[in-house]
Amino acid sequence: MDNELSPAARERLLGAGLELLLQRGYHGVGVQALLDAAQAPKGSFYHHFRDKEDFALQVIDAYMAGVHGALDASLSDTSLPPLDRVRRFFDMVAQGYASDGYLGCLLGGLGQELSGVSPVFGERIDGCLTYIAGRLAQPLDEARVAGQLPADTDPQALAMLLVNCWEGAALRSRLSHDPAPLRAMLDFFFQAATRE
Amino acid sequence: MDNELSPAARERLLGAGLELLLQRGYHGVGVQALLDAAQAPKGSFYHHFRDKEDFALQVIDAYMAGVHGALDASLSDTSLPPLDRVRRFFDMVAQGYASDGYLGCLLGGLGQELSGVSPVFGERIDGCLTYIAGRLAQPLDEARVAGQLPADTDPQALAMLLVNCWEGAALRSRLSHDPAPLRAMLDFFFQAATRE
Repeated sequence: MDNELSPAARERLLGAGLELLLQRGYHGVGVQALLDAAQAPKGSFYHHFRDKEDFALQVIDAYMAGVHGALDASLSDTSLPPLDRVRRFFDMVAQGYASDGYLGCLLGGLGQELSGVSPVFGERIDGCLTYIAGRLAQPLDEARVAGQLPADTDPQALAMLLVNCWEGAALRSRLSHDPAPLRAMLDFFFQAATRE
Repeated sequence: MDNELSPAARERLLGAGLELLLQRGYHGVGVQALLDAAQAPKGSFYHHFRDKEDFALQVIDAYMAGVHGALDASLSDTSLPPLDRVRRFFDMVAQGYASDGYLGCLLGGLGQELSGVSPVFGERIDGCLTYIAGRLAQPLDEARVAGQLPADTDPQALAMLLVNCWEGAALRSRLSHDPAPLRAMLDFFFQAATRE
Protein backbone atom coordinates (compact mmCIF):
# COMPACT_ATOMS: atom_id res chain seq x y z
CA MET A 1 0.00 0.00 0.00
CA ASP A 2 1.18 3.47 -0.77
CA ASN A 3 0.95 6.62 1.25
CA GLU A 4 -2.50 8.07 1.90
CA LEU A 5 -1.43 11.30 0.18
CA SER A 6 -0.37 9.52 -2.99
CA PRO A 7 -2.12 10.59 -6.21
CA ALA A 8 -2.10 6.89 -7.13
CA ALA A 9 -4.46 6.16 -4.24
CA ARG A 10 -6.81 8.86 -5.53
CA GLU A 11 -6.77 7.33 -9.01
CA ARG A 12 -7.44 3.85 -7.64
CA LEU A 13 -10.33 5.16 -5.54
CA LEU A 14 -11.88 6.81 -8.59
CA GLY A 15 -11.41 3.61 -10.61
CA ALA A 16 -13.05 1.54 -7.88
CA GLY A 17 -15.80 4.16 -7.68
CA LEU A 18 -16.54 3.91 -11.40
CA GLU A 19 -17.02 0.18 -11.05
CA LEU A 20 -18.86 0.05 -7.73
CA LEU A 21 -21.17 3.04 -8.26
CA LEU A 22 -22.20 1.63 -11.64
CA GLN A 23 -23.00 -1.74 -10.13
CA ARG A 24 -24.40 -0.90 -6.70
CA GLY A 25 -25.45 2.73 -6.93
CA TYR A 26 -24.51 5.60 -4.63
CA HIS A 27 -26.17 4.39 -1.46
CA GLY A 28 -25.11 0.80 -2.07
CA VAL A 29 -21.40 1.64 -1.70
CA GLY A 30 -19.72 2.69 1.52
CA VAL A 31 -16.34 4.37 1.99
CA GLN A 32 -14.85 1.21 3.50
CA ALA A 33 -15.87 -0.86 0.46
CA LEU A 34 -14.22 1.72 -1.78
CA LEU A 35 -11.02 1.67 0.27
CA ASP A 36 -10.98 -2.14 0.20
CA ALA A 37 -11.62 -2.35 -3.55
CA ALA A 38 -8.97 0.29 -4.25
CA GLN A 39 -6.52 -1.20 -1.72
CA ALA A 40 -6.13 2.37 -0.55
CA PRO A 41 -4.95 3.41 2.94
CA LYS A 42 -7.62 4.43 5.44
CA GLY A 43 -6.91 8.16 5.51
CA SER A 44 -6.76 8.52 1.73
CA PHE A 45 -10.48 8.93 1.08
CA TYR A 46 -10.95 12.06 3.15
CA HIS A 47 -7.56 13.36 2.11
CA HIS A 48 -8.54 13.34 -1.56
CA PHE A 49 -12.30 13.91 -1.32
CA ARG A 50 -14.32 16.27 0.85
CA ASP A 51 -17.09 13.74 1.34
CA LYS A 52 -18.93 10.99 -0.52
CA GLU A 53 -20.88 13.48 -2.63
CA ASP A 54 -17.64 15.18 -3.72
CA PHE A 55 -16.23 11.73 -4.51
CA ALA A 56 -19.23 10.73 -6.63
CA LEU A 57 -19.07 14.03 -8.53
CA GLN A 58 -15.40 13.33 -9.27
CA VAL A 59 -16.30 9.81 -10.39
CA ILE A 60 -18.78 11.42 -12.81
CA ASP A 61 -15.92 13.64 -14.06
CA ALA A 62 -13.78 10.53 -14.58
CA TYR A 63 -16.65 8.82 -16.42
CA MET A 64 -17.05 11.91 -18.60
CA ALA A 65 -13.32 11.87 -19.39
CA GLY A 66 -13.97 8.47 -20.98
CA VAL A 67 -16.98 9.87 -22.83
CA HIS A 68 -14.89 12.78 -24.12
CA GLY A 69 -12.30 10.29 -25.35
CA ALA A 70 -14.96 8.29 -27.21
CA LEU A 71 -16.49 11.48 -28.67
CA ASP A 72 -13.08 12.70 -29.85
CA ALA A 73 -12.12 9.31 -31.31
CA SER A 74 -15.41 8.76 -33.14
CA LEU A 75 -16.34 12.26 -34.28
CA SER A 76 -12.88 13.29 -35.49
CA ASP A 77 -12.70 10.44 -38.01
CA THR A 78 -13.70 12.48 -41.05
CA SER A 79 -13.01 9.53 -43.33
CA LEU A 80 -16.47 8.38 -42.20
CA PRO A 81 -19.74 10.04 -43.28
CA PRO A 82 -21.06 12.17 -40.38
CA LEU A 83 -23.92 9.85 -39.41
CA ASP A 84 -21.50 6.93 -39.25
CA ARG A 85 -19.33 8.93 -36.84
CA VAL A 86 -22.34 9.40 -34.56
CA ARG A 87 -23.18 5.72 -34.75
CA ARG A 88 -19.55 4.83 -34.06
CA PHE A 89 -19.69 6.87 -30.85
CA PHE A 90 -22.61 4.79 -29.59
CA ASP A 91 -20.95 1.59 -30.75
CA MET A 92 -17.93 2.54 -28.63
CA VAL A 93 -20.16 3.28 -25.64
CA ALA A 94 -21.92 -0.06 -26.14
CA GLN A 95 -18.53 -1.81 -26.17
CA GLY A 96 -17.88 -0.21 -22.80
CA TYR A 97 -21.22 -1.51 -21.52
CA ALA A 98 -20.32 -4.99 -22.77
CA SER A 99 -16.99 -4.99 -20.93
CA ASP A 100 -18.82 -3.90 -17.74
CA GLY A 101 -21.29 -6.79 -18.13
CA TYR A 102 -24.17 -4.57 -19.32
CA LEU A 103 -24.68 -2.43 -16.25
CA GLY A 104 -25.88 0.51 -18.33
CA CYS A 105 -24.79 4.12 -18.03
CA LEU A 106 -23.42 5.69 -14.85
CA LEU A 107 -25.14 8.99 -15.72
CA GLY A 108 -28.53 7.31 -15.96
CA GLY A 109 -27.93 5.24 -12.86
CA LEU A 110 -26.82 8.05 -10.55
CA GLY A 111 -29.28 10.44 -12.20
CA GLN A 112 -32.22 8.20 -11.35
CA GLU A 113 -31.03 7.39 -7.87
CA LEU A 114 -30.04 10.86 -6.71
CA SER A 115 -31.78 13.59 -8.67
CA GLY A 116 -35.01 13.32 -6.65
CA VAL A 117 -33.19 14.56 -3.56
CA SER A 118 -30.02 16.21 -4.83
CA PRO A 119 -30.29 19.11 -7.27
CA VAL A 120 -26.45 19.05 -7.45
CA PHE A 121 -26.48 15.61 -9.06
CA GLY A 122 -29.55 16.34 -11.16
CA GLU A 123 -28.02 19.45 -12.67
CA ARG A 124 -24.57 17.95 -13.12
CA ILE A 125 -25.89 14.88 -14.93
CA ASP A 126 -28.37 16.86 -17.00
CA GLY A 127 -25.43 19.05 -18.02
CA CYS A 128 -23.36 16.00 -19.02
CA LEU A 129 -26.15 14.69 -21.25
CA THR A 130 -26.66 18.14 -22.78
CA TYR A 131 -22.91 18.35 -23.47
CA ILE A 132 -22.91 14.96 -25.23
CA ALA A 133 -25.92 16.01 -27.31
CA GLY A 134 -24.15 19.26 -28.20
CA ARG A 135 -21.14 17.37 -29.53
CA LEU A 136 -23.36 15.00 -31.54
CA ALA A 137 -25.34 17.90 -32.99
CA GLN A 138 -22.29 18.96 -35.02
CA PRO A 139 -22.05 15.86 -37.24
CA LEU A 140 -25.85 15.74 -37.40
CA ASP A 141 -25.81 19.27 -38.79
CA GLU A 142 -23.07 18.26 -41.22
CA ALA A 143 -25.30 15.38 -42.35
CA ARG A 144 -28.19 17.80 -42.80
CA VAL A 145 -26.09 20.16 -44.92
CA ALA A 146 -24.89 17.19 -47.01
CA GLY A 147 -28.49 16.12 -47.60
CA GLN A 148 -28.24 12.93 -45.50
CA LEU A 149 -30.88 14.27 -43.12
CA PRO A 150 -34.00 16.22 -44.11
CA ALA A 151 -33.27 19.92 -44.63
CA ASP A 152 -35.63 20.96 -41.82
CA THR A 153 -33.89 18.76 -39.22
CA ASP A 154 -33.05 20.54 -35.96
CA PRO A 155 -29.67 18.92 -35.18
CA GLN A 156 -29.65 20.00 -31.54
CA ALA A 157 -33.14 18.65 -30.87
CA LEU A 158 -32.37 15.44 -32.76
CA ALA A 159 -29.15 14.93 -30.79
CA MET A 160 -30.99 15.46 -27.50
CA LEU A 161 -33.61 12.89 -28.53
CA LEU A 162 -30.91 10.42 -29.47
CA VAL A 163 -29.13 10.78 -26.13
CA ASN A 164 -32.40 10.52 -24.18
CA CYS A 165 -33.61 7.44 -26.04
CA TRP A 166 -30.17 5.88 -25.62
CA GLU A 167 -30.47 6.31 -21.86
CA GLY A 168 -33.74 4.37 -21.94
CA ALA A 169 -32.17 1.61 -24.00
CA ALA A 170 -29.22 1.56 -21.59
CA LEU A 171 -31.58 1.08 -18.65
CA ARG A 172 -33.21 -1.81 -20.48
CA SER A 173 -29.86 -3.41 -21.28
CA ARG A 174 -28.99 -3.11 -17.59
CA LEU A 175 -32.23 -4.81 -16.54
CA SER A 176 -31.84 -7.67 -19.00
CA HIS A 177 -28.02 -7.81 -19.33
CA ASP A 178 -28.57 -7.76 -23.06
CA PRO A 179 -27.28 -5.42 -25.78
CA ALA A 180 -30.34 -5.94 -28.02
CA PRO A 181 -32.25 -2.82 -26.83
CA LEU A 182 -29.22 -0.66 -27.66
CA ARG A 183 -28.97 -1.89 -31.24
CA ALA A 184 -32.73 -1.78 -31.76
CA MET A 185 -32.86 1.85 -30.63
CA LEU A 186 -30.00 2.96 -32.86
CA ASP A 187 -31.42 1.11 -35.89
CA PHE A 188 -34.84 2.69 -35.41
CA PHE A 189 -33.40 6.13 -34.79
CA PHE A 190 -31.10 6.28 -37.79
CA GLN A 191 -33.70 4.79 -40.09
CA ALA A 192 -36.30 7.28 -38.84
CA ALA A 193 -34.06 10.33 -38.89
CA THR A 194 -32.81 9.81 -42.42
CA ARG A 195 -36.22 9.39 -44.03
CA GLU A 196 -37.74 12.47 -45.64
CA MET B 1 -53.74 5.92 14.63
CA ASP B 2 -55.30 2.61 13.87
CA ASN B 3 -54.26 -0.87 14.88
CA GLU B 4 -51.01 -2.25 13.45
CA LEU B 5 -52.95 -5.14 11.92
CA SER B 6 -55.32 -2.85 10.04
CA PRO B 7 -55.39 -3.17 6.25
CA ALA B 8 -55.69 0.63 6.18
CA ALA B 9 -52.19 0.91 7.66
CA ARG B 10 -50.89 -1.37 4.90
CA GLU B 11 -52.52 0.81 2.25
CA ARG B 12 -51.11 3.98 3.77
CA LEU B 13 -47.63 2.44 3.91
CA LEU B 14 -47.84 1.51 0.24
CA GLY B 15 -49.08 5.00 -0.62
CA ALA B 16 -46.20 6.59 1.29
CA GLY B 17 -43.83 4.11 -0.36
CA LEU B 18 -44.97 5.11 -3.84
CA GLU B 19 -44.19 8.72 -3.06
CA LEU B 20 -40.98 8.31 -1.10
CA LEU B 21 -39.35 5.60 -3.24
CA LEU B 22 -40.01 7.68 -6.35
CA GLN B 23 -38.42 10.72 -4.79
CA ARG B 24 -35.58 9.31 -2.70
CA GLY B 25 -34.95 5.84 -4.12
CA TYR B 26 -34.80 2.54 -2.25
CA HIS B 27 -31.76 3.20 -0.11
CA GLY B 28 -32.81 6.77 0.57
CA VAL B 29 -35.92 5.70 2.51
CA GLY B 30 -35.89 3.98 5.88
CA VAL B 31 -38.69 2.06 7.57
CA GLN B 32 -39.11 4.79 10.21
CA ALA B 33 -39.58 7.47 7.53
CA LEU B 34 -42.24 5.27 5.90
CA LEU B 35 -44.04 4.76 9.21
CA ASP B 36 -43.91 8.50 9.90
CA ALA B 37 -45.16 9.47 6.44
CA ALA B 38 -47.95 6.88 6.59
CA GLN B 39 -48.80 7.72 10.22
CA ALA B 40 -48.75 3.99 10.74
CA PRO B 41 -48.13 2.25 14.07
CA LYS B 42 -44.64 0.89 14.73
CA GLY B 43 -45.44 -2.81 14.40
CA SER B 44 -47.38 -2.45 11.18
CA PHE B 45 -44.48 -2.53 8.75
CA TYR B 46 -43.24 -5.99 9.68
CA HIS B 47 -46.77 -7.23 10.17
CA HIS B 48 -47.68 -6.46 6.57
CA PHE B 49 -44.29 -6.86 4.86
CA ARG B 50 -41.58 -9.49 5.28
CA ASP B 51 -38.81 -6.94 4.84
CA LYS B 52 -37.97 -3.81 2.90
CA GLU B 53 -37.41 -5.75 -0.33
CA ASP B 54 -40.85 -7.35 -0.03
CA PHE B 55 -42.29 -3.89 0.66
CA ALA B 56 -40.64 -2.35 -2.41
CA LEU B 57 -41.88 -5.22 -4.60
CA GLN B 58 -45.40 -4.58 -3.32
CA VAL B 59 -44.98 -0.86 -4.04
CA ILE B 60 -44.06 -1.85 -7.60
CA ASP B 61 -47.27 -3.92 -7.72
CA ALA B 62 -49.23 -0.88 -6.52
CA TYR B 63 -47.54 1.29 -9.15
CA MET B 64 -48.39 -1.29 -11.80
CA ALA B 65 -52.03 -1.28 -10.67
CA GLY B 66 -52.06 2.39 -11.68
CA VAL B 67 -50.39 1.53 -14.99
CA HIS B 68 -52.99 -1.18 -15.63
CA GLY B 69 -55.71 1.38 -14.96
CA ALA B 70 -54.19 3.81 -17.45
CA LEU B 71 -53.71 1.06 -20.04
CA ASP B 72 -57.32 -0.08 -19.64
CA ALA B 73 -58.71 3.46 -19.78
CA SER B 74 -56.71 4.53 -22.82
CA LEU B 75 -56.60 1.37 -24.91
CA SER B 76 -60.26 0.42 -24.46
CA ASP B 77 -61.49 3.69 -25.98
CA THR B 78 -62.20 2.34 -29.45
CA SER B 79 -63.77 5.65 -30.49
CA LEU B 80 -60.14 6.72 -30.98
CA PRO B 81 -57.88 5.46 -33.80
CA PRO B 82 -55.44 2.88 -32.38
CA LEU B 83 -52.35 5.12 -32.48
CA ASP B 84 -54.24 7.83 -30.60
CA ARG B 85 -55.06 5.29 -27.89
CA VAL B 86 -51.35 4.54 -27.48
CA ARG B 87 -50.53 8.22 -27.35
CA ARG B 88 -53.31 8.77 -24.83
CA PHE B 89 -51.75 6.16 -22.55
CA PHE B 90 -48.49 8.09 -22.48
CA ASP B 91 -50.33 11.37 -22.04
CA MET B 92 -52.00 9.87 -18.97
CA VAL B 93 -48.65 8.69 -17.63
CA ALA B 94 -47.17 12.14 -18.26
CA GLN B 95 -50.07 13.69 -16.32
CA GLY B 96 -49.08 11.44 -13.43
CA TYR B 97 -45.48 12.62 -13.71
CA ALA B 98 -46.69 16.23 -13.66
CA SER B 99 -48.71 15.70 -10.49
CA ASP B 100 -45.64 14.11 -8.85
CA GLY B 101 -43.53 17.15 -9.82
CA TYR B 102 -41.68 15.35 -12.66
CA LEU B 103 -39.85 12.69 -10.70
CA GLY B 104 -39.98 10.26 -13.62
CA CYS B 105 -40.96 6.61 -13.55
CA LEU B 106 -40.70 4.39 -10.48
CA LEU B 107 -39.79 1.42 -12.68
CA GLY B 108 -36.86 3.27 -14.21
CA GLY B 109 -35.77 4.68 -10.86
CA LEU B 110 -35.77 1.41 -8.91
CA GLY B 111 -34.54 -0.48 -11.97
CA GLN B 112 -31.45 1.70 -12.23
CA GLU B 113 -30.76 1.75 -8.53
CA LEU B 114 -31.25 -1.92 -7.74
CA SER B 115 -30.80 -4.14 -10.78
CA GLY B 116 -27.00 -4.10 -10.56
CA VAL B 117 -27.14 -5.99 -7.28
CA SER B 118 -30.63 -7.53 -7.16
CA PRO B 119 -31.72 -9.89 -9.93
CA VAL B 120 -35.15 -9.99 -8.22
CA PHE B 121 -35.73 -6.30 -8.94
CA GLY B 122 -34.08 -6.44 -12.35
CA GLU B 123 -36.31 -9.28 -13.50
CA ARG B 124 -39.47 -7.89 -11.94
CA ILE B 125 -39.04 -4.46 -13.52
CA ASP B 126 -37.96 -5.88 -16.87
CA GLY B 127 -41.15 -7.97 -16.75
CA CYS B 128 -43.28 -4.90 -16.00
CA LEU B 129 -41.86 -3.04 -19.00
CA THR B 130 -42.32 -6.10 -21.22
CA TYR B 131 -45.93 -6.35 -20.04
CA ILE B 132 -46.63 -2.70 -20.89
CA ALA B 133 -45.04 -3.17 -24.32
CA GLY B 134 -47.20 -6.27 -24.85
CA ARG B 135 -50.36 -4.31 -24.15
CA LEU B 136 -49.29 -1.49 -26.49
CA ALA B 137 -48.41 -3.96 -29.25
CA GLN B 138 -52.10 -4.75 -29.69
CA PRO B 139 -53.24 -1.29 -30.89
CA LEU B 140 -49.98 -0.95 -32.84
CA ASP B 141 -50.88 -4.15 -34.69
CA GLU B 142 -54.40 -2.82 -35.23
CA ALA B 143 -52.86 0.33 -36.73
CA ARG B 144 -50.66 -1.81 -38.98
CA VAL B 145 -53.65 -3.81 -40.23
CA ALA B 146 -55.56 -0.56 -40.84
CA GLY B 147 -52.64 0.79 -42.89
CA GLN B 148 -51.68 3.49 -40.37
CA LEU B 149 -48.29 1.84 -39.87
CA PRO B 150 -46.15 0.28 -42.61
CA ALA B 151 -47.22 -3.30 -43.42
CA ASP B 152 -43.85 -4.73 -42.36
CA THR B 153 -44.00 -3.16 -38.87
CA ASP B 154 -43.24 -5.58 -36.02
CA PRO B 155 -45.73 -4.30 -33.40
CA GLN B 156 -44.03 -6.07 -30.51
CA ALA B 157 -40.59 -4.70 -31.36
CA LEU B 158 -42.03 -1.23 -31.97
CA ALA B 159 -43.86 -1.28 -28.65
CA MET B 160 -40.67 -2.33 -26.83
CA LEU B 161 -38.77 0.52 -28.48
CA LEU B 162 -41.46 2.97 -27.49
CA VAL B 163 -41.41 1.89 -23.85
CA ASN B 164 -37.61 1.93 -23.71
CA CYS B 165 -37.29 5.38 -25.29
CA TRP B 166 -40.01 6.63 -22.97
CA GLU B 167 -37.96 5.51 -19.98
CA GLY B 168 -35.03 7.58 -21.25
CA ALA B 169 -37.26 10.61 -21.72
CA ALA B 170 -38.68 10.04 -18.22
CA LEU B 171 -35.17 10.07 -16.77
CA ARG B 172 -34.49 13.33 -18.55
CA SER B 173 -37.72 14.88 -17.32
CA ARG B 174 -36.70 13.83 -13.79
CA LEU B 175 -33.28 15.45 -14.15
CA SER B 176 -34.67 18.71 -15.50
CA HIS B 177 -38.16 18.72 -13.91
CA ASP B 178 -39.48 19.43 -17.37
CA PRO B 179 -42.05 17.58 -19.52
CA ALA B 180 -40.44 18.69 -22.81
CA PRO B 181 -38.34 15.51 -23.30
CA LEU B 182 -41.51 13.39 -22.98
CA ARG B 183 -43.39 15.28 -25.67
CA ALA B 184 -40.35 15.47 -27.96
CA MET B 185 -39.88 11.70 -27.75
CA LEU B 186 -43.52 10.90 -28.50
CA ASP B 187 -43.65 13.36 -31.40
CA PHE B 188 -40.51 11.89 -32.97
CA PHE B 189 -41.65 8.34 -32.41
CA PHE B 190 -45.12 8.66 -33.89
CA GLN B 191 -43.88 10.71 -36.82
CA ALA B 192 -41.13 8.15 -37.48
CA ALA B 193 -43.28 5.05 -37.04
CA THR B 194 -46.05 6.18 -39.33
CA ARG B 195 -43.85 7.08 -42.30
CA GLU B 196 -43.47 4.48 -45.00
